[in-house]
Amino acid sequence: MSKKDTTAVGDAAKSSIWGGRFSRGPSQLMQDINASIAYDKQLYRQDIDGSKAHATMLAACGIISDADCAAIHDGLSQIITEIEAGDFEFSAALEDIHMNIESRLADLIGEPARRLHTARSRNDQVATDFKLWVRASIDALDDALAALQASLLDKADEHCNTIMPGFTHLQTAQPVTFGFHLMAYVEMLGRDRGRFADARVRLNESPLGAAALAGTSFPIDRAQTAELLGFDRPAANAMDAVSDRDFALELLAAASICAVHLSRLAEEMVIWSSDRFAFISLSDAFTTGSSIMPQKRNPDAAELVRAKPGRIIGSLNGLLIVLKGLPLAYGKDMQEDKEGVFDAVESLAIAIAATSGMVRDMTANKNAMRDALTTGFPTATDLADYMVRELGLPFREAHHASGSIVALAAAKGCDLDALSLEDMQAVEPRIKADIMGILTVESAVAARTSFGGTAPVEVKARIADARSRFAIER
Amino acid sequence: MSKKDTTAVGDAAKSSIWGGRFSRGPSQLMQDINASIAYDKQLYRQDIDGSKAHATMLAACGIISDADCAAIHDGLSQIITEIEAGDFEFSAALEDIHMNIESRLADLIGEPARRLHTARSRNDQVATDFKLWVRASIDALDDALAALQASLLDKADEHCNTIMPGFTHLQTAQPVTFGFHLMAYVEMLGRDRGRFADARVRLNESPLGAAALAGTSFPIDRAQTAELLGFDRPAANAMDAVSDRDFALELLAAASICAVHLSRLAEEMVIWSSDRFAFISLSDAFTTGSSIMPQKRNPDAAELVRAKPGRIIGSLNGLLIVLKGLPLAYGKDMQEDKEGVFDAVESLAIAIAATSGMVRDMTANKNAMRDALTTGFPTATDLADYMVRELGLPFREAHHASGSIVALAAAKGCDLDALSLEDMQAVEPRIKADIMGILTVESAVAARTSFGGTAPVEVKARIADARSRFAIER
Amino acid sequence: MSKKDTTAVGDAAKSSIWGGRFSRGPSQLMQDINASIAYDKQLYRQDIDGSKAHATMLAACGIISDADCAAIHDGLSQIITEIEAGDFEFSAALEDIHMNIESRLADLIGEPARRLHTARSRNDQVATDFKLWVRASIDALDDALAALQASLLDKADEHCNTIMPGFTHLQTAQPVTFGFHLMAYVEMLGRDRGRFADARVRLNESPLGAAALAGTSFPIDRAQTAELLGFDRPAANAMDAVSDRDFALELLAAASICAVHLSRLAEEMVIWSSDRFAFISLSDAFTTGSSIMPQKRNPDAAELVRAKPGRIIGSLNGLLIVLKGLPLAYGKDMQEDKEGVFDAVESLAIAIAATSGMVRDMTANKNAMRDALTTGFPTATDLADYMVRELGLPFREAHHASGSIVALAAAKGCDLDALSLEDMQAVEPRIKADIMGILTVESAVAARTSFGGTAPVEVKARIADARSRFAIER
Amino acid sequence: MSKKDTTAVGDAAKSSIWGGRFSRGPSQLMQDINASIAYDKQLYRQDIDGSKAHATMLAACGIISDADCAAIHDGLSQIITEIEAGDFEFSAALEDIHMNIESRLADLIGEPARRLHTARSRNDQVATDFKLWVRASIDALDDALAALQASLLDKADEHCNTIMPGFTHLQTAQPVTFGFHLMAYVEMLGRDRGRFADARVRLNESPLGAAALAGTSFPIDRAQTAELLGFDRPAANAMDAVSDRDFALELLAAASICAVHLSRLAEEMVIWSSDRFAFISLSDAFTTGSSIMPQKRNPDAAELVRAKPGRIIGSLNGLLIVLKGLPLAYGKDMQEDKEGVFDAVESLAIAIAATSGMVRDMTANKNAMRDALTTGFPTATDLADYMVRELGLPFREAHHASGSIVALAAAKGCDLDALSLEDMQAVEPRIKADIMGILTVESAVAARTSFGGTAPVEVKARIADARSRFAIER
Repeated sequence: MSKKDTTAVGDAAKSSIWGGRFSRGPSQLMQDINASIAYDKQLYRQDIDGSKAHATMLAACGIISDADCAAIHDGLSQIITEIEAGDFEFSAALEDIHMNIESRLADLIGEPARRLHTARSRNDQVATDFKLWVRASIDALDDALAALQASLLDKADEHCNTIMPGFTHLQTAQPVTFGFHLMAYVEMLGRDRGRFADARVRLNESPLGAAALAGTSFPIDRAQTAELLGFDRPAANAMDAVSDRDFALELLAAASICAVHLSRLAEEMVIWSSDRFAFISLSDAFTTGSSIMPQKRNPDAAELVRAKPGRIIGSLNGLLIVLKGLPLAYGKDMQEDKEGVFDAVESLAIAIAATSGMVRDMTANKNAMRDALTTGFPTATDLADYMVRELGLPFREAHHASGSIVALAAAKGCDLDALSLEDMQAVEPRIKADIMGILTVESAVAARTSFGGTAPVEVKARIADARSRFAIER
Repeated sequence: MSKKDTTAVGDAAKSSIWGGRFSRGPSQLMQDINASIAYDKQLYRQDIDGSKAHATMLAACGIISDADCAAIHDGLSQIITEIEAGDFEFSAALEDIHMNIESRLADLIGEPARRLHTARSRNDQVATDFKLWVRASIDALDDALAALQASLLDKADEHCNTIMPGFTHLQTAQPVTFGFHLMAYVEMLGRDRGRFADARVRLNESPLGAAALAGTSFPIDRAQTAELLGFDRPAANAMDAVSDRDFALELLAAASICAVHLSRLAEEMVIWSSDRFAFISLSDAFTTGSSIMPQKRNPDAAELVRAKPGRIIGSLNGLLIVLKGLPLAYGKDMQEDKEGVFDAVESLAIAIAATSGMVRDMTANKNAMRDALTTGFPTATDLADYMVRELGLPFREAHHASGSIVALAAAKGCDLDALSLEDMQAVEPRIKADIMGILTVESAVAARTSFGGTAPVEVKARIADARSRFAIER
Repeated sequence: MSKKDTTAVGDAAKSSIWGGRFSRGPSQLMQDINASIAYDKQLYRQDIDGSKAHATMLAACGIISDADCAAIHDGLSQIITEIEAGDFEFSAALEDIHMNIESRLADLIGEPARRLHTARSRNDQVATDFKLWVRASIDALDDALAALQASLLDKADEHCNTIMPGFTHLQTAQPVTFGFHLMAYVEMLGRDRGRFADARVRLNESPLGAAALAGTSFPIDRAQTAELLGFDRPAANAMDAVSDRDFALELLAAASICAVHLSRLAEEMVIWSSDRFAFISLSDAFTTGSSIMPQKRNPDAAELVRAKPGRIIGSLNGLLIVLKGLPLAYGKDMQEDKEGVFDAVESLAIAIAATSGMVRDMTANKNAMRDALTTGFPTATDLADYMVRELGLPFREAHHASGSIVALAAAKGCDLDALSLEDMQAVEPRIKADIMGILTVESAVAARTSFGGTAPVEVKARIADARSRFAIER
Repeated sequence: MSKKDTTAVGDAAKSSIWGGRFSRGPSQLMQDINASIAYDKQLYRQDIDGSKAHATMLAACGIISDADCAAIHDGLSQIITEIEAGDFEFSAALEDIHMNIESRLADLIGEPARRLHTARSRNDQVATDFKLWVRASIDALDDALAALQASLLDKADEHCNTIMPGFTHLQTAQPVTFGFHLMAYVEMLGRDRGRFADARVRLNESPLGAAALAGTSFPIDRAQTAELLGFDRPAANAMDAVSDRDFALELLAAASICAVHLSRLAEEMVIWSSDRFAFISLSDAFTTGSSIMPQKRNPDAAELVRAKPGRIIGSLNGLLIVLKGLPLAYGKDMQEDKEGVFDAVESLAIAIAATSGMVRDMTANKNAMRDALTTGFPTATDLADYMVRELGLPFREAHHASGSIVALAAAKGCDLDALSLEDMQAVEPRIKADIMGILTVESAVAARTSFGGTAPVEVKARIADARSRFAIER
């Protein structure tokens, strides 16, 4: 059907990529499709923390002996050491991180290892491990986002008075300050942190002890393991506890929105650092140069940050698809939950770190920003507002009169603040000399003192308030 | 390039669908692509609420007169009456709901209408309207989810003692109760409600007064309009306030996760009501029959609920894509924010309502559920647990011995509880007569009293607790 | 749980939106969730075409009488007339377009109408209707894409010699011509047309006569209905024929890729028409102005085209989700197949038409394009190539030497073509006077005559070739 | 804001995961975000094939010497050997596969290596490499899909006469044969192969020689490199050639649709192998057992195949998002194109292979399939068809009468074929004795001989035809 390569080149390429793939026997195939150790070994520490807590509880409840419990703790501690030293041999034949660790534990301590799995199953174990991993990721992302807010706040502080064009539709609209513009991102990131924090509260119920799907007949104390692992309480329904991956979905959803925020700033950095805008210069650390065009600073880091929502949204989408229409309780489909989350967290973490670095290191070209305001009549709104405020015109009429004056300036090829009083009075006779101080971009910016507006005094107040709300010290 | 229809049928079809589409002139095209009134008229009440609050504040701040404010309020009240009576003529030439209403207001009250838009722009106006709409939707969805939890709790109460197979991989795993299984969904929906509630708190900052993107030079009081509209506070950065659509994304993300939950229950209903399972019967109200096969009850409503995540996740995805890489502040791309949200909320609302009805009306076929437990050795875990608990075997060894006994039963073609004590002792001599009471499915269910387990007494406790946590009265 | 509105404003808003929604009784709910007539009435012509072909075949095979067949044809023709005149009353109680039409047919012609559904079911009927609709849409989209290619080719012809910066990373890289740049889109759209054409060939198998899922015992002639409806052949497996929605998925996939192409051009138009670039002016027809800033031309149409991939990809994603894991044959989930496709086709059609108009009407600002090449050393590559070609330097060394000369120019604050021969020879003594003609942007453009390169002579050749390949006359 | 872990457990977990991540300096960060060698080393063979073809052409065009060309070929051949022997040291500092290979080539052969990059850039080089990789993947996927069709055809052959319930809405609808049901998938896979084949034709244009974005001034012969690499022709526009990733999108779209097909079969396998259906038994090779419940065969492989659309659709979605709104020509965003494609191809390949194995190895439980037809009146349609065909009733009336007879059987608690002639005549007196042979499921299946119907004779014909159309030998 398809036209195949008949060249040696094509055939060789094909055989080199696909070589053994389709000659795999069933058992090899099943291992390939089934084993998760290649990626779930990332959970090793969570798995061991969970097992230690479980053993402690089993002993406290009299289900295993204190001696067995101590042996289990010692063995697990040694395994951590082995793994972190790179001395642990992971085996695909043992399928997953749980069996790899349990098997090694049996090598190390013998019988007590075979008592560890009492009153739990892999279903509640993996849910616990994965929740602990997600929780730790949220904490780390929160730290990283706070650091990015700090970079933005510092830069905004520095540029409270730096005037640049504010755009709508990428067309000059009204003058704003660079500090004001950056503060928009501080708010976005604050909401991102709020989403992660809410997700953390919601996930913080322990699945451990839910067993396969129905609870257990052993007299376990789920509240104890919950507390030992830093959970707020045990999850209230065992079947839900092993079937639930909301915590992963919610992390991915929050990460997707956060990545979209970063992509908006990245797009602005790409545009601002283009030759035509030249509003900012990115540092060498976050651009790639060209040996042939020394002035070229390709904003590679910004472009990669701009692209990251692709894979993160893809992972969110992917996990929603996996879980859609899945009957309770555990199905093997759910093994597809981890790789997308691991990739999304890593991608977002690196995007946040790169953005922090870019923000911290970038230089604002104040002259280019200011020069860009000599076209586009960015103070036309101020002229209309003057006529409302001082002359009592209804806004819609003032808006219209302002338009006529702008047209006059356009015809004369000058800015609004270069028109004479007479010129303006020809359109609206009641305009008085006090208009002259109002039409500069500096005046326009200074006048917008409404709450959250772009006036430097207001931006400074909002910076102080944001530092307090988000607990970001100077 | 493509092979075209040459038949009259095809040509006619094509011309009838596409008739005028490509003969549209530019201005018609631009109106088609630009006008939003066809869908944003849904926001009429929010738009009017916002305008009333704005006028009240303008008067309080001395920016317009009290008389103008009163005229504006009267005019807007009349417009609501006209719209709700179906007497309002919406015009695509006026583009959007804001201009349609302002234009009608000018017809009704003249000059004061032209003062209303002072110190605001369509950018902050539409953000305010849309937030108010999303907030009202969240409240309605929360009510609907609580009603669904109530249906599930009632049904769970009724079936605390109804035993059915608990599945993993759709294979019989351990016996559970139907009430226990349904309670898993009460937990899921509780998290859904939590997500909507968190989204509501986060969105509840007022954009009004942010103006085009930079605030305003009028001495407005954004705190007053915020309070009048039920917001907790004004948004802290004007540029963010007009560029932000997080509240729509967060609604869509929460709706997507919720829809996935509903799809899992819907899938179970489809399977449970299939001829082979016959665990439940759905009511006539939520099935479609067949005049030719009277026993057929196609679970159409459940299938449609199962399908709904498609469009809701599609809308989430769509809006993330629209916003990705979008420079601040407003771009026309953002006009694509509403239709997906409207459709997702409507879809989710109808899916919740249909699920509530199906749950309330369904009948459990206890015999079929119980009969399904005569195969599959669903109490094999209990046998292993017995050997751990009573004989002190390490779990892994008990697990192995239990497997051998199950194999013996399989060879004899009987259930575990039909084996003789001698049969079992042949595998593990220490097994005693007390085993005989343990291997029935009833015993197995009753024994799982761990917190959140399937034992009826535990399920009853969790139902009571859930009624309290989720404020769902009997 | 959530903090509710306690204000009158909020409550009113909620009740107005949600009013009857949750007071719907089960039967109303089921009708809301079940009825598809609100959107599938778009299929009226395809449904009637299919029924006519079916009746013709039934008569030819002796299954109904010729008289009945004639009555059916007459009745259906009258129904078309009624629908197109707006005289047809669609009824939600009759659920879908099929039953609406059959019911009206029975009113009009009595008994023969009740013979029409012999040897078919709604499952094959709706698959047939929907395929015919998708096929007609593909034909119309192909026409529209050809028209857009024509606009691009005309504009490219006009600007074969118009020099502008070619960008990578939005940084000036090498000079290109505007015509060359536009021709990239002609290629993309050519591939889009190819995808639609391939999808058309693949869909063109008739489901009609597959009946519910298993074929029929009537001696029908599926080849005849296939031919009458312009299909290439009947589908080979009845169960597949009613379960298959590949044709919708493939349309959506092709539409998504096409929409991404259009979004790339739209983004370029937004950037090119920004105040800082000013490379092009969009016509009034596709921009919105501002009464207050007469120079402002917000590129609204381009922004909306840029946003369209959101909903189209969302629809693709949505239908993939609906179909994932769906057992054969028909499930009600599949009723969710149409709205997304209708919306995607409409969205893409309008995006193509708007892009065609924008391209046709836009004006290139040649001076701004040319001026943008005075910075960035866009001919540095040509200098390196010279040293390879004329001096025999290995490319990597020439690249390095060129970099040194560019650094010298940067230090002097001049362009490459303003350096003296001596300046260059200081870096590489073998450079000769013939270099002087090579470093202008005009020379650089003219020199790139490799196949598909930017040299005007080559671009002209490629335009001619594209007109031929894509059958686009001048 | 977020509640942090204060326990040692949490802190340790956090530090172990995130350890160095946020202490990375800018240069380390930039390397992390920028380097692609970790995954693009998969392209090594394609990169070397491309470089060999490029060198051959450069020599043929007199741009490099034959001796240099020979040295380059020898060096590259040695590098292949090194890589495939595992002796090649990949370096992240050299960023990507291209620079890793070029750098090693320089080590091996000196100056000629520095001439290799003449008249090309990394932009056209990576597009060429990636296209070659995608093309080889398409060929391998086509082979795998043909093998799966072969498995299905063999199984369908075996089960042309095996009767089972045909379902709509997972409710028994009409009897079909198992062979007929499986043949639906042969058709789906045939369309999948068609999509891959079309994608292959469309991608088969060579980007090589497009250089950075504008072509080159060297007198290269792009047709020669195209031919050497098995491309049909060079791409017609250089800017498009380096900006285009349609081939990756189209592969992902075709893979997504194919994965959805496989997920439908996987869902059926999960349901069919459930205890309640027991229609099929999966082999040990593709299930996981349980040491405790020997009869349990968890259909893990089927569940994983069912889940695979998640990540594949996620990757499609992700790349569409990355490319949306991206200005030409190359942007670093495009580096995000490969990982998703690599993962999707690997995932699909393994899903196809696993499905082939499961189909080949599964056993049909004919008794269970046949027994399932004793409920549900699966021949009610045949009764109605009889009344149309033999008694001349209009279909809608026959449908109604059949419904009444079915109701009678339901009331008597028997199947249709157990009713007496008198019973039936009580509803419709014209029914004759010949009805008695028609109402068995065997008759019903045998009667559906319409093209593509379920009658064994027709299924056999379609199998033969499919073997021929898809070139699948027995």
